[in-house]
Amino acid sequence: MSRIGIGIVGAGRIGKLHAENMIKHPDIELIGVSDVQLNEALLRWSKPFNLSIVTDSYLQLIEDERVDAIFICSPTNTHIDIIRAAAAAGKHIFCEKPISFHYEETKQVLQLVQEAGIIFQVGFNRRFDHNFSKVRALVDADKIGEPHIIKITSRDPAPPPASYIAASGGMFMDMSIHDFDMARFLAGSEVETVFAEGTVLVDPAIGELGDIDTAIVTLRFTNGALGVIDNSRRAAYGYDQRVEILGAKGSIGVENDLPTTVKISTEEAIVTDHPQYFFLDRYMASYKAELEHFIECVSNGAAPSVSVFDGYQAERIACAARRSLGEHRIVHMEEVV
Amino acid sequence: MSRIGIGIVGAGRIGKLHAENMIKHPDIELIGVSDVQLNEALLRWSKPFNLSIVTDSYLQLIEDERVDAIFICSPTNTHIDIIRAAAAAGKHIFCEKPISFHYEETKQVLQLVQEAGIIFQVGFNRRFDHNFSKVRALVDADKIGEPHIIKITSRDPAPPPASYIAASGGMFMDMSIHDFDMARFLAGSEVETVFAEGTVLVDPAIGELGDIDTAIVTLRFTNGALGVIDNSRRAAYGYDQRVEILGAKGSIGVENDLPTTVKISTEEAIVTDHPQYFFLDRYMASYKAELEHFIECVSNGAAPSVSVFDGYQAERIACAARRSLGEHRIVHMEEVV
Amino acid sequence: MSRIGIGIVGAGRIGKLHAENMIKHPDIELIGVSDVQLNEALLRWSKPFNLSIVTDSYLQLIEDERVDAIFICSPTNTHIDIIRAAAAAGKHIFCEKPISFHYEETKQVLQLVQEAGIIFQVGFNRRFDHNFSKVRALVDADKIGEPHIIKITSRDPAPPPASYIAASGGMFMDMSIHDFDMARFLAGSEVETVFAEGTVLVDPAIGELGDIDTAIVTLRFTNGALGVIDNSRRAAYGYDQRVEILGAKGSIGVENDLPTTVKISTEEAIVTDHPQYFFLDRYMASYKAELEHFIECVSNGAAPSVSVFDGYQAERIACAARRSLGEHRIVHMEEVV
Amino acid sequence: MSRIGIGIVGAGRIGKLHAENMIKHPDIELIGVSDVQLNEALLRWSKPFNLSIVTDSYLQLIEDERVDAIFICSPTNTHIDIIRAAAAAGKHIFCEKPISFHYEETKQVLQLVQEAGIIFQVGFNRRFDHNFSKVRALVDADKIGEPHIIKITSRDPAPPPASYIAASGGMFMDMSIHDFDMARFLAGSEVETVFAEGTVLVDPAIGELGDIDTAIVTLRFTNGALGVIDNSRRAAYGYDQRVEILGAKGSIGVENDLPTTVKISTEEAIVTDHPQYFFLDRYMASYKAELEHFIECVSNGAAPSVSVFDGYQAERIACAARRSLGEHRIVHMEEVV
Repeated sequence: MSRIGIGIVGAGRIGKLHAENMIKHPDIELIGVSDVQLNEALLRWSKPFNLSIVTDSYLQLIEDERVDAIFICSPTNTHIDIIRAAAAAGKHIFCEKPISFHYEETKQVLQLVQEAGIIFQVGFNRRFDHNFSKVRALVDADKIGEPHIIKITSRDPAPPPASYIAASGGMFMDMSIHDFDMARFLAGSEVETVFAEGTVLVDPAIGELGDIDTAIVTLRFTNGALGVIDNSRRAAYGYDQRVEILGAKGSIGVENDLPTTVKISTEEAIVTDHPQYFFLDRYMASYKAELEHFIECVSNGAAPSVSVFDGYQAERIACAARRSLGEHRIVHMEEVV
Repeated sequence: MSRIGIGIVGAGRIGKLHAENMIKHPDIELIGVSDVQLNEALLRWSKPFNLSIVTDSYLQLIEDERVDAIFICSPTNTHIDIIRAAAAAGKHIFCEKPISFHYEETKQVLQLVQEAGIIFQVGFNRRFDHNFSKVRALVDADKIGEPHIIKITSRDPAPPPASYIAASGGMFMDMSIHDFDMARFLAGSEVETVFAEGTVLVDPAIGELGDIDTAIVTLRFTNGALGVIDNSRRAAYGYDQRVEILGAKGSIGVENDLPTTVKISTEEAIVTDHPQYFFLDRYMASYKAELEHFIECVSNGAAPSVSVFDGYQAERIACAARRSLGEHRIVHMEEVV
Repeated sequence: MSRIGIGIVGAGRIGKLHAENMIKHPDIELIGVSDVQLNEALLRWSKPFNLSIVTDSYLQLIEDERVDAIFICSPTNTHIDIIRAAAAAGKHIFCEKPISFHYEETKQVLQLVQEAGIIFQVGFNRRFDHNFSKVRALVDADKIGEPHIIKITSRDPAPPPASYIAASGGMFMDMSIHDFDMARFLAGSEVETVFAEGTVLVDPAIGELGDIDTAIVTLRFTNGALGVIDNSRRAAYGYDQRVEILGAKGSIGVENDLPTTVKISTEEAIVTDHPQYFFLDRYMASYKAELEHFIECVSNGAAPSVSVFDGYQAERIACAARRSLGEHRIVHMEEVV
Repeated sequence: MSRIGIGIVGAGRIGKLHAENMIKHPDIELIGVSDVQLNEALLRWSKPFNLSIVTDSYLQLIEDERVDAIFICSPTNTHIDIIRAAAAAGKHIFCEKPISFHYEETKQVLQLVQEAGIIFQVGFNRRFDHNFSKVRALVDADKIGEPHIIKITSRDPAPPPASYIAASGGMFMDMSIHDFDMARFLAGSEVETVFAEGTVLVDPAIGELGDIDTAIVTLRFTNGALGVIDNSRRAAYGYDQRVEILGAKGSIGVENDLPTTVKISTEEAIVTDHPQYFFLDRYMASYKAELEHFIECVSNGAAPSVSVFDGYQAERIACAARRSLGEHRIVHMEEVV
């Protein structure tokens, strides 16, 4: 197999992470990166990679015939245009979440991708996490019978700056969207109704921007199971990422990964390690695994396990949660079409 | 101090448990028990205790001058009459939960108790549990700052028989009421709104009785915190009783108690012990501790930490949850008056 | 069954503990206690129990016909005389460990007890601990196959005062003796050779008394298994009591019991509860269980599971360990006869 | 910095592992590998790496001027000759453990390396493990005061084939040598005396080869601390690698790493994940970290933290343990010169 040529659009934190994983990958040739901010720092960062293209125009990447696939890591509001251009050029696409802030736009991507006959994967990397994928596998293996309750705990260590919040699409679209996807993934079912309770307890600045920082979202799935997600922008002890499923025959749960298993016991306290603080550290392996999956799908012409449809559904749930919070009522997913 | 004379009304599972704890207590003299089913088995059970009174009439206990306090362990629908009679006779009262199926009746008890000047304690024994009381103490000691999210997991190992369900007042009044009280206890705040999602996944017979067996209840407290309770009538692995509080400065959580710390590691599996299966085993120590507290309050004329008002509030929340489930909407506590 | 009359010789910490457990036991009548120091404090302590006899002469207890069994809780150097007197009077005996500082004397007790036809139990209460007895039961149930390595961790929270050390018989006879018995109990085999490495790291005063405070003892069992015990007089974090058995098919281990399952997670640390600090707290349940066992054996004329022979063997191992340490060589148990 | 040219001698399991890590390393140029068995499989394995040299003669690597450093991953009995040749050519050396089966030979390497002025690192990769290096760092930071007891549990999941055992140098030299190094590393002190108890419980074939498969080794350190290692060739549940240090102010311990944090709770059992089974999986990160350390030392002309002397000392302890076992007595390290 010849190597797959890739161009990365958007060289922020995530774009750089993907680039660094690609450089070491034997089956990938990273052709280039584009970023609207083509500054000194970016050039310095990219230098050791000897890229053919470092540009401020993503079209240059899309038009290059060595490029087989585009990684879209730019701000969410730029995604749709880039997807259109890449699909038109017949390039495969990996797109970070959310695909769009407006699920109606994402719906159009569904058709676009089908018509273009390209591979499209959305960046719900947590599905590839060792803990969560094992939970799903065990449920599939019927270890606990039919799921009754899906519980997800998902808390950031500290809130992002106000500037980030302002452009984030709101907590449900920015942060909880991972959990909405995880809920569908673990339940093996679609969501039927959404109820969101949310509030501002962490940082008043978040409230001033019209967003929330603390939430409980209750889901009812079409298969009858219930789901509940608790989110916070502030878990002082680290990045808190746990799930638990209660089923007819038992439960499966995962705790946080810890950097070490060290336990210190003194007269003052019995102390164990903190969870990872930074999400890129916590999910480094799953970022690599989702890249691996994408490469395999492109190589074999297979459909990725995390499709446009998955992106679309998670966005619809985020929208329903926002509406539920705003109108203080249960929202049926049928309302969100 | 002379010993406190006690009469127990209702010699079912809980009544017997209290009796057996009292027999060993140096400061208590168990005068008698009453039960409408004064059968052979009851007589056999009570024989070794050499009780002065074993009767089918609770009035006989209330009227006996050696009796200082009445323990009400009979079915919920008999509580109010017994409370009235006991209060009229100036007897102190310990009453199992719920005080009544109708919070309006319980509201009357509030006044009754005040007027009678008696000690009244309601049987929310879990407040006296070593784990939960420690959580509360640590929150009070400001270990994690202001509470943001209170999470309670409360699952029975197996559903009770249909006959029990039919007379139970429904899952919220029968089972979740402990969690509603625990939520108030841990949050240190009153509940403002309630949203309950519930369903029948465990046993269709429960659904046929108009009840549910699986629920997620979301609470908003007046101090701004959020709460969430997940309940199930069926946790195949045992009685599952955990709480977790996320606060501004961190979190406090408790796991299930295990009978032993044994870990068996073989090629097949790494196995640890199950949680207790039976709630009386799990909470034996807290039943003793609540008894101790009652005795102290009676001895010193002090107000119990678990008052009629606590029973009243938990019943109101149960009622709100039932209404929320029935009408599929958020219910404000102000509606429940 | 009529109640069993008991007299306690020695009203120190352990004697008092047994007395308090007996008072609440329906099948026991505590007739009296004796202590050479019959002071005000002792009288005050015993008053609420309404004992028939509180004396400074253990003979008074032994001679009283209401007394069926004697609990020997006095200093070790008094045990043999009391055992002789009690056996001569046909009283059953419960004796705290060690039976004697000189296993040769204990050997004589073996015969004495057999001739007198009395029940004799030695106070290795840890065999009745929920964790350790479960380990033994699982080994018996062949969960891990033949034992290969028995590991015991046994550390006191803080060293006793020099006065205690001076009369203790040394760390092996006073503290490790519990572990020697546990090793035999868990291995289901006798010890063949002993190697003891020991040193003074905790408190120089202990070294000045010719004793040690830190030790590693390696055992070889007659069934081929190996054993290792680590002892310290100082575990700053609490009383540390763990065992682990590696067998042909896997391992079984137990961790320390914790007072609560509380976990506090903050930016500074993730903290869990300390082990119990005081051995009477840690082993309260096993003290009750050994009492229960003794009462059952006396009632049914059955042989206790912890016999004079078990006391004798543990003392021989302690003696071998002392010799090994002193002569810095491996000692065969055959040398200790 | 120009890249460091490396040649690997011995393309067995470990040689291949190092090669694969080097290929991805930006600062390393893997020039070639040598193996006396230059067969088809080896050529096939090496093909994707496009190596300049694939040979059956290690001299070809040593003589190549592009080679800056030699990795010695061939059988132990070939090490000394290769070291001599490499040192004579002024090449830096990374050598797998043990450096030699005869510590007297290793002693000569000490001088040889000093005279040649080369960088020499021995492959005690576990010092670079995230858990163990953190333990050491915490001890250095005085979290638990002076170490009193160092405990190491080190058990293989299954015994190697008899052919491996026969050429292994015996369990102490082959397997325990890692633990002897770890003991010195954690204690921060040299060993003074060694007592080894060992036996054959896992596989009689091992005994027939004059080796053992189960051992307890007790160490006394020159700083007064005690150490104990338990080894087995058979831990049915996986590769078991734990350490614990008891110090004056508390203890530090590490448990096994687990692949996931999954816990499955059913009526039958509460099950968690197994430790890794294969040592290359368990220690993959530490193999990478030791490589990183070597590259840094070569780049900066710094002395590796794991020196010839460390290899020499561990071999001496292994020899003392063998002698202790054979002569069934305590061996002073002074005897092993």
